[in-house]
Amino acid sequence: MYLDELWKEKESLLDKEVSVHGWIRNHRPQKEFGFIDFSDGTSVKHLQIVYDKTLDNFAEVSSYHHGSSIMVTGTLKKSEGKSQDVELKASKILLLGDAPLDYPLQPKKHSLEFLRSIGYLRPRANLFQAVFRVRSRAAIAIHEYFSSNGYVYFHAPLITASDCEGAGEMFQVTTLPIEKLKGEVDYKKDFFGKKASLTVSGQLQAETFATAFSKVYTFGPTFRAENSNTKTHASEFWMIEPEIAFCDLEGDMDIMESMLKYVVADVLEHCKEEMSFLDKYQEPGLIEKLEKLVQSKFTRITHEEVITILKKADVKWEFEPKYGEDIQKEHEKYITEYFHGPVFITNWPKDIKAFYMKQNEDGKTVAAVDLEVPGAGELMGGSQREEDYDKLLKRMNELKMDTKEMEWYLNLRKYGTVVHSGFGMGFERLLIYITGVENIRDVIPYPRTPGSCDF
Amino acid sequence: MYLDELWKEKESLLDKEVSVHGWIRNHRPQKEFGFIDFSDGTSVKHLQIVYDKTLDNFAEVSSYHHGSSIMVTGTLKKSEGKSQDVELKASKILLLGDAPLDYPLQPKKHSLEFLRSIGYLRPRANLFQAVFRVRSRAAIAIHEYFSSNGYVYFHAPLITASDCEGAGEMFQVTTLPIEKLKGEVDYKKDFFGKKASLTVSGQLQAETFATAFSKVYTFGPTFRAENSNTKTHASEFWMIEPEIAFCDLEGDMDIMESMLKYVVADVLEHCKEEMSFLDKYQEPGLIEKLEKLVQSKFTRITHEEVITILKKADVKWEFEPKYGEDIQKEHEKYITEYFHGPVFITNWPKDIKAFYMKQNEDGKTVAAVDLEVPGAGELMGGSQREEDYDKLLKRMNELKMDTKEMEWYLNLRKYGTVVHSGFGMGFERLLIYITGVENIRDVIPYPRTPGSCDF
Repeated sequence: MYLDELWKEKESLLDKEVSVHGWIRNHRPQKEFGFIDFSDGTSVKHLQIVYDKTLDNFAEVSSYHHGSSIMVTGTLKKSEGKSQDVELKASKILLLGDAPLDYPLQPKKHSLEFLRSIGYLRPRANLFQAVFRVRSRAAIAIHEYFSSNGYVYFHAPLITASDCEGAGEMFQVTTLPIEKLKGEVDYKKDFFGKKASLTVSGQLQAETFATAFSKVYTFGPTFRAENSNTKTHASEFWMIEPEIAFCDLEGDMDIMESMLKYVVADVLEHCKEEMSFLDKYQEPGLIEKLEKLVQSKFTRITHEEVITILKKADVKWEFEPKYGEDIQKEHEKYITEYFHGPVFITNWPKDIKAFYMKQNEDGKTVAAVDLEVPGAGELMGGSQREEDYDKLLKRMNELKMDTKEMEWYLNLRKYGTVVHSGFGMGFERLLIYITGVENIRDVIPYPRTPGSCDF
Repeated sequence: MYLDELWKEKESLLDKEVSVHGWIRNHRPQKEFGFIDFSDGTSVKHLQIVYDKTLDNFAEVSSYHHGSSIMVTGTLKKSEGKSQDVELKASKILLLGDAPLDYPLQPKKHSLEFLRSIGYLRPRANLFQAVFRVRSRAAIAIHEYFSSNGYVYFHAPLITASDCEGAGEMFQVTTLPIEKLKGEVDYKKDFFGKKASLTVSGQLQAETFATAFSKVYTFGPTFRAENSNTKTHASEFWMIEPEIAFCDLEGDMDIMESMLKYVVADVLEHCKEEMSFLDKYQEPGLIEKLEKLVQSKFTRITHEEVITILKKADVKWEFEPKYGEDIQKEHEKYITEYFHGPVFITNWPKDIKAFYMKQNEDGKTVAAVDLEVPGAGELMGGSQREEDYDKLLKRMNELKMDTKEMEWYLNLRKYGTVVHSGFGMGFERLLIYITGVENIRDVIPYPRTPGSCDF
């Protein structure tokens, strides 16, 4: 049986015979007996196997290596040890697959850099057992939040022929024999008959679904070909992009706040052992930080008000805060500390925000919002979308965009247009915040970054 | 309020005032009164709005076009009509956004080809309201099945530098300026420092996670650059790929069967109105077909036995069935009819199956399985994986594969190797089966096929 089943039925299995299969995570053989720290990976909690000389193959078992796979039959017993409540008294231990002495994942402290180099083995390490289980649970919690609130889950296309999304540099997708090209490219001969790329956002297509189903969300991969090697950028990452008709900026913030609290509370509830591990070894105070978030009321304040607060602050800024301009990491940090919690900053200068955002009546700002979270900075960004055909067209012309190619998007404003809003959350940003892991490379199973595409 | 909320609280809202916002799906204005077929897309069931001359703007409302967005306040009343139980007696109707008379989605029968050409509007059509709601629910059901059974949801990488997956032709991903290339390509200058492509399967990486967490699954997009314009092929589609340690081929089939039944039963339960619509207009008998599947016992039979049955059949085949060779659509059809239900065909000739499959002792077959379903053909394929290092290496060498590049995959058989199995299910194949829709282009929000990459 698998360990997750064993833990669930622990009480009724006491003093009964059970069989388990899994891996030796650690092994302490003694002269007359031995202890195996055993796991099959279905829970972060390991099972202690106790064996002694009554085993036929005692000498052989004593020599089993860390990392080997074994099958164990025995009796589940109350444990006298402090660190576990039950243990398995083995009557039979069988080697399934040996791990040689040079098995790279030894039971000792490895650097995160080294573990990345053995990316196909690192999910077996305690830290990644916790991180990837939290990743899995958080994804499920997101689906549960939206589906229980009547949203339609929508798969945005990954390959796109549009380069208008404007959210970042794009990867080109092609089947042309690029080794044989000689300075001229006939895209009619490419797979799709035109130039194609990997999407940077599913939002524009999500808007088409929001004007059909009212409440929709995407949860899928997006791509950025930016050549930035930082702790928070990956070239391939997963995004959640809800889009809601008949919802203005205030309603948008309500959803952002309620979703975030739901997901964090869900992970705290369903991943107790994972979170305890991360709280202990990764970020002391992590659980308290997250519990506080779930309880807190998020502040709502305009960009202009933020600049006023920053200007009044008795701080020597590296970057001077200015009305009409973007804010920097140091400002984000100050403002979440100032309000002792998460802060929605609204109504941003239009020139630093995307073309599709609802133009406010002041002619200077748009109905955009960023959520700043203590210790993590910007976690989500959203906006009310411009629903007025003429205003959107004018803005796109100002930005010299190809309005012909984007006719379908503009037409949403011509055919029963409605107030609508949405937001985007980078899934890995959320995971960095929830797990306390610092580098985005350590919350993605197989991270893709500039110069790196392994496994 | 949204309609899904209104339907839920229908009883308590009777004779109360409610406000709704949505779109006019149809409009029958009369001299003294009028009926609006109204929906906000949160349910396939529409709400009938009744208005009369007591409205201040009666004449104006009478002229509102199909497709326009409106806001309606009124009293929810028991309906005397046959096709609905309640209706909204309007006290106020407000136009939010007009749809002009040339609005492309008129309330009449359009061809599926035409609807594809207005892909950004077709989700508003009744058929696609049903199909994409079923798609959403089926995706949630898949997540629920696996998460409630202790699986870790794993995001396989989409961009890969490996071309060993062998499941089909690949799209190349690049940031090289291909318009400027002159016959020589230095991949060191490409984004990842080497040639990269879009994945055709997450299985190999899923195996690394299965040997860490025992029970894992992927659910994400995969890509095939095959130039085949058929009803069942898309260049971008979503796949579910579970991978389970300590599980042999029999266990694999148990999971395939239980997952499929769970998802189909869940959709029948949660999408009653969608399925009624599809049963009525798309595939008469659809619900009965699916209910039968959920009740049926799946047959398990070897490829060799299948060929024997086919050879004995009193049928004039277009393709003669042969031992050691693949079977054709006509054979699949015959065999599911022969057994009156779904059939697992196991132990396929090794030369027509992938390198990683468990080699049977006969030296001729592998522990592979295809699930054939009445009316749909092959719905899933899986196998026990070869867990023996030497046998896998030998097979890869026979197939002249790059074993150096695949060292990490081989090493899974060196470091605590275990019996493990998995399978893949194309999500859209499942949807074609569940919805009765014939063309894969009509179950994908924005399909990508050879020569076609719109919106």
